[in-house]
Amino acid sequence: MALIVQKYGGTSLMDTARIKNVANRIKLYHEQGHQLVVVLSAMGHTTDYLVEMASEVSSEPGKREMDMLLSTGEQVSIALMAMALDELGVPALSFTGGQVGILTDDRHTEARIHSISVERVRPHLDEHKVCIVAGFQGVDQHSNITTLGRGGSDTSAVALAVALGARECEIYTDVDGVYTTDPNKVADARKIDRLSYEEMLEMARLGAGVLHSRSVEMASKNNMVIHVRSSFNNAQGTLVVPEDEVMEQVVVRGVSLKTDEARIAVVDIPDRPGLAADLFSRLAEAQVNVDMIVQSTGKDQKNTISFTVTEKTLNDSRRIVEAWLRDLESGSYEVDEEIAIVSAVGIGMKSHSGIAARMFQALANVGINIEMISTSEIKISVVVSMDDGRGALQAVHEAFELGKAS
Amino acid sequence: MALIVQKYGGTSLMDTARIKNVANRIKLYHEQGHQLVVVLSAMGHTTDYLVEMASEVSSEPGKREMDMLLSTGEQVSIALMAMALDELGVPALSFTGGQVGILTDDRHTEARIHSISVERVRPHLDEHKVCIVAGFQGVDQHSNITTLGRGGSDTSAVALAVALGARECEIYTDVDGVYTTDPNKVADARKIDRLSYEEMLEMARLGAGVLHSRSVEMASKNNMVIHVRSSFNNAQGTLVVPEDEVMEQVVVRGVSLKTDEARIAVVDIPDRPGLAADLFSRLAEAQVNVDMIVQSTGKDQKNTISFTVTEKTLNDSRRIVEAWLRDLESGSYEVDEEIAIVSAVGIGMKSHSGIAARMFQALANVGINIEMISTSEIKISVVVSMDDGRGALQAVHEAFELGKAS
Repeated sequence: MALIVQKYGGTSLMDTARIKNVANRIKLYHEQGHQLVVVLSAMGHTTDYLVEMASEVSSEPGKREMDMLLSTGEQVSIALMAMALDELGVPALSFTGGQVGILTDDRHTEARIHSISVERVRPHLDEHKVCIVAGFQGVDQHSNITTLGRGGSDTSAVALAVALGARECEIYTDVDGVYTTDPNKVADARKIDRLSYEEMLEMARLGAGVLHSRSVEMASKNNMVIHVRSSFNNAQGTLVVPEDEVMEQVVVRGVSLKTDEARIAVVDIPDRPGLAADLFSRLAEAQVNVDMIVQSTGKDQKNTISFTVTEKTLNDSRRIVEAWLRDLESGSYEVDEEIAIVSAVGIGMKSHSGIAARMFQALANVGINIEMISTSEIKISVVVSMDDGRGALQAVHEAFELGKAS
Repeated sequence: MALIVQKYGGTSLMDTARIKNVANRIKLYHEQGHQLVVVLSAMGHTTDYLVEMASEVSSEPGKREMDMLLSTGEQVSIALMAMALDELGVPALSFTGGQVGILTDDRHTEARIHSISVERVRPHLDEHKVCIVAGFQGVDQHSNITTLGRGGSDTSAVALAVALGARECEIYTDVDGVYTTDPNKVADARKIDRLSYEEMLEMARLGAGVLHSRSVEMASKNNMVIHVRSSFNNAQGTLVVPEDEVMEQVVVRGVSLKTDEARIAVVDIPDRPGLAADLFSRLAEAQVNVDMIVQSTGKDQKNTISFTVTEKTLNDSRRIVEAWLRDLESGSYEVDEEIAIVSAVGIGMKSHSGIAARMFQALANVGINIEMISTSEIKISVVVSMDDGRGALQAVHEAFELGKAS
């Protein structure tokens, strides 16, 4: 008997048949006597459909109205789920973000949660009713509807779990948990049983799409256990827990491959303080997310700065770099789109030396050339050529014995 | 320069192209300097689609959750309209029923408006922004979302017009206004320029679908002028106004035909006080709407009660009548489904005598037999056989010179 928050994503709610499946799962928990708060995303492709309509009436839809529009998706899900549960004899009530007291700032489409007032749901939980809450949404201090941006429903779920003092927050998705690497790319990939918030954060940033960074940050700050698992079976998934609860201390927890980035190398620029700061401020202002940055100074006191950006923002980045070089009146730049970034993440790196060397050796053994290196306390990333991406991922996965056979 | 409330129904909002059309119309008003509050229904078939999904997850969806579900339809409309207006350079903001302070009782799916607090929209109107409000919905005192039942968006619009002290409430629909009779049934039908609330109420009850009774009642109570007009052209529509503002005093304003009713005749029952009251209470409890009622007492002190009900409720009605007769231990009943009801409505009847006679004579002239008669201060209804329905409608329409040629 515990208070549990569960979150179900869009693929678990693709149609009314899947909604009924999820309702059956919730029923089992309810019968075990648990108090349940269930957070839902919009059904399947609802959001795409709404965005499409918005684009038909406006070339640049306002953010406040976009939130008004998109928040209906989750509202449809919660109403249907409450009906489906009621049909199974499970008493349930649905709540919008505003009704459950999720108060946010007023940054529409990417709002942050300020506070949650759980007085509205607590009495219903005590009466053993299932409370179904619309994820992804809240209201600002003037009751305007806001949304929390990408992965917002995960954040809603963790925030509610924290506010209610839940035992854990279960995030249901269409995969069995967090894997050592993408199983579509490395057949040998293994599901991870437990990992720390820090590891999950790095892996989320690297595109392990199962959890959004903000939800992990919030869980980390409040020591809320997240259980990532599949809504299509009953298998135990992956527990994301405080570092000291990670039993099995491995050096590298997972490896990842990104192929949607491009490298920009700016060469022959003066070695003056503040130059790099100026460049990266300009990129940040234009919402360009820079991933790896490497700078080196040659003997002639001329600088080279290399960095990677997503291909989506490459055109913006080119424009900014060109303007910056014009202002500098020196230097030039090159772009390489045919790159791949392979990263290894593990909290064990903190206390183990030689991890980077082991990774580089593994790549050398299979004849893969490293073009760029960047390391942090719990992550090592290397840039290799696009063609070498898969091979590099495989080699690093094996080198750290992450496969099933290990 | 006036404050005007406009309401657009689902057919005016069938798709994003029509939403853009309506936005253009609103823009014209805005450019003329009017303050505008625009009330919207759900787009085209949205509600049907949502109801269909509800029926897929539940055999009997709860009313609270139904309101949570259906209210998303209007929310989508208002967000898209605000975007479409913004795209045209017209500043606009959308509001849900709750946000605009439409407080209702808690009778889900058929709530009544208690109060409206217009403080939320007033400042935006003063800044010359168009306020787009979701029709059909409100919230109860616990912030649960409620809906106002059939025709609810008309009621929202009139209530807002009253609360804001608007000059008039324009109800946009897919016809040019209120007609003397259904143009699909009588080619000669003519658009009415002005009619009184009482006349509109009677005609609405008779199925002149352009306005819902509750909205007319509310307008009547507050002397709010309703302008029923088409969203597909700029023609002047029909003004619904206080009785003393109806210039042209005609005897009969319009005539109608209903063919979806059945007549139940209960015969050979004792002439005892309270018997009829008992029968009609039972019918009311079962939500059976009784239209015409005629009672007559024969020489033998035996009573006959005839009444009409819609065919939808005929089975319920049969059951109730049978149970009532069992309790009485006397009498029997007959049902005639092959009937039509022809009604004439006009405030002029109050001051003119001989209207009923003129109507009966018109029917006699074309050889139509009257099976049942019921009159009120401003309405005369007759039951004829189903086959005679169209002919009767035509004859009465001509008798009162309602056609275009007149």
